[in-house]
Amino acid sequence: MNQDLRREREAASFNPELLTHVLDGSPENTRRRREIENLILNDPDFQHEDLNFLSRSQRYEVAVKKSASMVKKMREFGIADPEEIVWFKKIHLVNFVEPVSLNFSMFIPTLLNQGTTAQQEKWLLSCKGLEIIGTYAQTEMGHGTHLRGLETTATYDPETQEFILNSPTVTSIKWWPGGLGKTSNHAIVLAQLITKGKCYGLHAFIVPIREIGTHKPLPGITVGDIGPKFGYDEMDNGYLKMDNYRIPRENMLMKYAQVKPDGTYVKPVSNKLTYGTMVFVRSFLVGEAARSLSKACTIAIRYSAVRHQSELKPGEPEPQILDFQTQQYKLFPLLATAYAFQFVGAYMKETYHRINEDIGQGDLSELPELHALTAGLKAFTSWTTNAAIEACRMACGGHGYSHCSGLPNIYVNFTPTCTFEGENTVMMLQTARFLMKSYDQVHSGKLMCGMVSYLNDLPSQRIQPQQVAVWPTVVDIDSPDSLTEAYKLRAARLVEIAAKNLQNEVIHRESKEVAWNLTSIDLVRASEAHCHYVVVKLFSEKLLKIQDKSIHTVLKNLCLLYCLYGVSQKAGDFLQGGIMTESQITQVNQRIKELLTVIRPDAVALVDAFDFQDVTLGSVLGRYDGNVYENLFEWAKKSPLNKAEVHESYHKYLKPLQSKL
Amino acid sequence: MNQDLRREREAASFNPELLTHVLDGSPENTRRRREIENLILNDPDFQHEDLNFLSRSQRYEVAVKKSASMVKKMREFGIADPEEIVWFKKIHLVNFVEPVSLNFSMFIPTLLNQGTTAQQEKWLLSCKGLEIIGTYAQTEMGHGTHLRGLETTATYDPETQEFILNSPTVTSIKWWPGGLGKTSNHAIVLAQLITKGKCYGLHAFIVPIREIGTHKPLPGITVGDIGPKFGYDEMDNGYLKMDNYRIPRENMLMKYAQVKPDGTYVKPVSNKLTYGTMVFVRSFLVGEAARSLSKACTIAIRYSAVRHQSELKPGEPEPQILDFQTQQYKLFPLLATAYAFQFVGAYMKETYHRINEDIGQGDLSELPELHALTAGLKAFTSWTTNAAIEACRMACGGHGYSHCSGLPNIYVNFTPTCTFEGENTVMMLQTARFLMKSYDQVHSGKLMCGMVSYLNDLPSQRIQPQQVAVWPTVVDIDSPDSLTEAYKLRAARLVEIAAKNLQNEVIHRESKEVAWNLTSIDLVRASEAHCHYVVVKLFSEKLLKIQDKSIHTVLKNLCLLYCLYGVSQKAGDFLQGGIMTESQITQVNQRIKELLTVIRPDAVALVDAFDFQDVTLGSVLGRYDGNVYENLFEWAKKSPLNKAEVHESYHKYLKPLQSKL
Repeated sequence: MNQDLRREREAASFNPELLTHVLDGSPENTRRRREIENLILNDPDFQHEDLNFLSRSQRYEVAVKKSASMVKKMREFGIADPEEIVWFKKIHLVNFVEPVSLNFSMFIPTLLNQGTTAQQEKWLLSCKGLEIIGTYAQTEMGHGTHLRGLETTATYDPETQEFILNSPTVTSIKWWPGGLGKTSNHAIVLAQLITKGKCYGLHAFIVPIREIGTHKPLPGITVGDIGPKFGYDEMDNGYLKMDNYRIPRENMLMKYAQVKPDGTYVKPVSNKLTYGTMVFVRSFLVGEAARSLSKACTIAIRYSAVRHQSELKPGEPEPQILDFQTQQYKLFPLLATAYAFQFVGAYMKETYHRINEDIGQGDLSELPELHALTAGLKAFTSWTTNAAIEACRMACGGHGYSHCSGLPNIYVNFTPTCTFEGENTVMMLQTARFLMKSYDQVHSGKLMCGMVSYLNDLPSQRIQPQQVAVWPTVVDIDSPDSLTEAYKLRAARLVEIAAKNLQNEVIHRESKEVAWNLTSIDLVRASEAHCHYVVVKLFSEKLLKIQDKSIHTVLKNLCLLYCLYGVSQKAGDFLQGGIMTESQITQVNQRIKELLTVIRPDAVALVDAFDFQDVTLGSVLGRYDGNVYENLFEWAKKSPLNKAEVHESYHKYLKPLQSKL
Repeated sequence: MNQDLRREREAASFNPELLTHVLDGSPENTRRRREIENLILNDPDFQHEDLNFLSRSQRYEVAVKKSASMVKKMREFGIADPEEIVWFKKIHLVNFVEPVSLNFSMFIPTLLNQGTTAQQEKWLLSCKGLEIIGTYAQTEMGHGTHLRGLETTATYDPETQEFILNSPTVTSIKWWPGGLGKTSNHAIVLAQLITKGKCYGLHAFIVPIREIGTHKPLPGITVGDIGPKFGYDEMDNGYLKMDNYRIPRENMLMKYAQVKPDGTYVKPVSNKLTYGTMVFVRSFLVGEAARSLSKACTIAIRYSAVRHQSELKPGEPEPQILDFQTQQYKLFPLLATAYAFQFVGAYMKETYHRINEDIGQGDLSELPELHALTAGLKAFTSWTTNAAIEACRMACGGHGYSHCSGLPNIYVNFTPTCTFEGENTVMMLQTARFLMKSYDQVHSGKLMCGMVSYLNDLPSQRIQPQQVAVWPTVVDIDSPDSLTEAYKLRAARLVEIAAKNLQNEVIHRESKEVAWNLTSIDLVRASEAHCHYVVVKLFSEKLLKIQDKSIHTVLKNLCLLYCLYGVSQKAGDFLQGGIMTESQITQVNQRIKELLTVIRPDAVALVDAFDFQDVTLGSVLGRYDGNVYENLFEWAKKSPLNKAEVHESYHKYLKPLQSKL
């Protein structure tokens, strides 16, 4: 093992294995996760190609091959539990995406949620057996966020009992679905349902797009790849254009709404339940943010322990760059954030399962808050993680720009999370809508529960939003609970400002919608403060459940750093309304420096606890043994540009210029 | 032309052509720039391939071809002025980099600056004629920032009158030089000079690495490409390992230091002048930041004018997304920043030329401040631009992730600016060193001039840094001059805090270096505040020189937005020390919203004024005519994944799985 890493590990104040158990939820979870990971790592069929050296078409081919082998292996090993599938995929795919994933993550779940029992019986086995390779086609070239704006039509023809699907304009071409470009032979298509001359809005249809066996596009279908992107090289995100394309009536998913053979539309009893999938996906993405950020921190912190540069004390050898205060200030708040998000992710998963059981028993009461919370937290954690991965990359100096670091791939594969499954600003505004509704309800005398219960404490007689100051509070900057209170006051204040500004605009504007738009900066700010409070609160509460003293100490320091760093970054918010004083902010900045020094000896052990396999990190800089430079040289030699034939460009283009002298 | 863009252009309050003249410096400059751009655009040889569809090896080949054709064309058109070369290259290369660029930007200039007349006579013609294709090899795998840490040695052998070059370790392998991997046949190598058993530090040597004609690596030389990176696909950044490789004594650049034939070392008279190149390159990078950000804003704002989505008023057609307050809040402060950086870039260029003339006349007095200022501004503008390009990309929704938008390429080609030519944190600390020195000088009674003259006003009897508050100031948030004063106070306060904290650490720590490290967060913060002040000041001063009233009005609004947005983002800094009050911060947030509305009708004209040719933007979303969706579809069809042979992966990997059912 690298000497620097060995020394770091020996000096740690705690046993990282115990912290890994905390992150996994239990020692048993850790054991089972590793068991599954080892199934692949020890399998002779498993071979990790470095996709960085391949062209996009080659990467696509490797990805299809990997998809296929993954399906085979999962059948072989009998892995079916969703969580275990995630572990399995993480190791199998190593930071890359797979073209058939939407068959399992979108096509099958939609069939299960929205198909009738008969439809499930008809299609499900073929999907699971990959005879049907499905994807999910919702977004159009001209329409994303605003679902009502989607243009694709499905017009019912009672004579043949078929739906006629059409993409009437260029903007209506389905655009982006993963696996659509080359891989899939079916798609669940979202289209405006028209029957008996009337449009009933969006509904889902199973649409065959390629012939099974030959894989050729069917007549009336134009389908292909949408071209190269920022990352997702292996994924054939595709386009789909339909021209008077007919499918049987039975291909409409009819668990809720129905179209009778004669064309009569039967509307669904309730559509609240379609919330469920969105909530699930978004809460999953919070966990993804945590995992991606943890990976980036692992690479950047291990590299910073191995890299020696510059001078700290004249005449002494070059120090580890992790000893520079500026480097610690770049990385340790992000490490603290990674832990915060890990706990938020775990909380979201638990909550989702708990509320899902309630829903099963007909209790939908907590769904609105969960919906608002997942929207906001998806945005909050993905924005933060997005910037944080880049900060980790740039903290690695030049080598961070090389694909050898693994960081560019982590970034480009993560960044779409800010836009897909609900664009982040739109998500923040959804949370804001819930906050404004809650604020109004408190003002009409109702008591709120859950994460917004702090709104109950807003003194209703106040007029000026600035006067939250009158709440008595002395913030103890060494107490996570006290800091949580400070974040709560900040959220309450910003929610109130947004609400008052909104009321004010409503009075002066032609419509509520215009007023909403003209308050949206304040609304987003309020949502961010609310989400920040929730994260701080969950981290603080997690501390109470940690038994082991050494683990408790190190997590408490991370929690404090997370809280204080946020205060320092948003000092204006905490000064306004008198939540904190100027001299407290000065103390906060001083305390942050002290915490960096305290966390320093544990930094490597803290990333070791995330327990990523070297192969999962896909990084020369982040390897457990940290033999950075030798490995880097070996890696570079594999560059395709080092093949002899690339030299031809010299003889073709440069040599003729030389001879002209 | 797209109807939305036409309407936007008709509604503008000013003539963008006049603003273009301001940006170019004069109508004559605009004319000449366009003339050169048109040389290429009208040339039948000029053909714009979309490199996005090619593999890295193909991209490299195209880039070499383009490099060669560029050299030919420049010879043909007689373009030799450095500025005109930049314009020519911008259009010719269209957002991509060229492997032979270091021959012109680093090899030849170093030869001119550090070579004797005899050396220049011997080498220069061959370099210009591309018989010698040179690069510049400084950075090593294990060493970047800290030049004294470089390990490559050049040991003089008086018997043969040769230098023996060695890469003694893996970490000493030269790493990163552009064009080194495949293209170059010579490199200027920085190495530790050893003669008569003594090391004299870094010196520059001309090292042949490949045989002219065959282009084969010479014996003793190991050279190759370092592998794929985040961007710079066309560039063969390379590695170089030398094993007892001998070069003649005359290959050491000897304008300043010399090694006599017997091995006697003659040290240089002064080495201050080597500053010059760094200052030039860094001030050029400030302009590059402005250009990259202007490009990103052009694309995002034009697209936001063309894209319709969601609902603002119920029942009405989908609005342009540029009408959403959140979208304006994302983009207009960045647009204002782009203008700010354009003016800072122009100022840096002027100042560099002015001071360079002074230097020519032996006056070095302004060099230290210029050196400090370029370091800080390079870091400040590149960090800001880095985040801003990504913000522009993410403001384009899904299409921002596609290479069709051009934004991913702008980002990956810009982001290295944060690290090369001086890593940004190191740059900020260099500026801080100058600020601390200036602060000390003021305290020992000296008057400072230039950008740091505000330090003269610091009342020396004060002890608590918090007390800057005693300066009387009432900030007028509608006056750029008054806001400049506020930024000045903020900078003064943060410089003072850093200085006091540094003094305090010096008392308690073993060495000045340790104290410096333990204050470095404060030092970086002080430098950022100083740079922010300089940018605000230069923008405000620029307004005074604008004659045309309509241009003045629109630029004043942008300047106000730039200033107020900064205040809002860093509200804590302005509240502390009492520079501004809580109610002023509330007014600032309100005023920002008003400014967004005021700027809205001019947004498209403001990006039109940057005057980018469609082909330079390399973006479907940012085209002048804005036929976004048709163009997008045409672009996508060219994706290599749409070629028939890619289908084989279905038959090879997925079909066999299906048959197993």
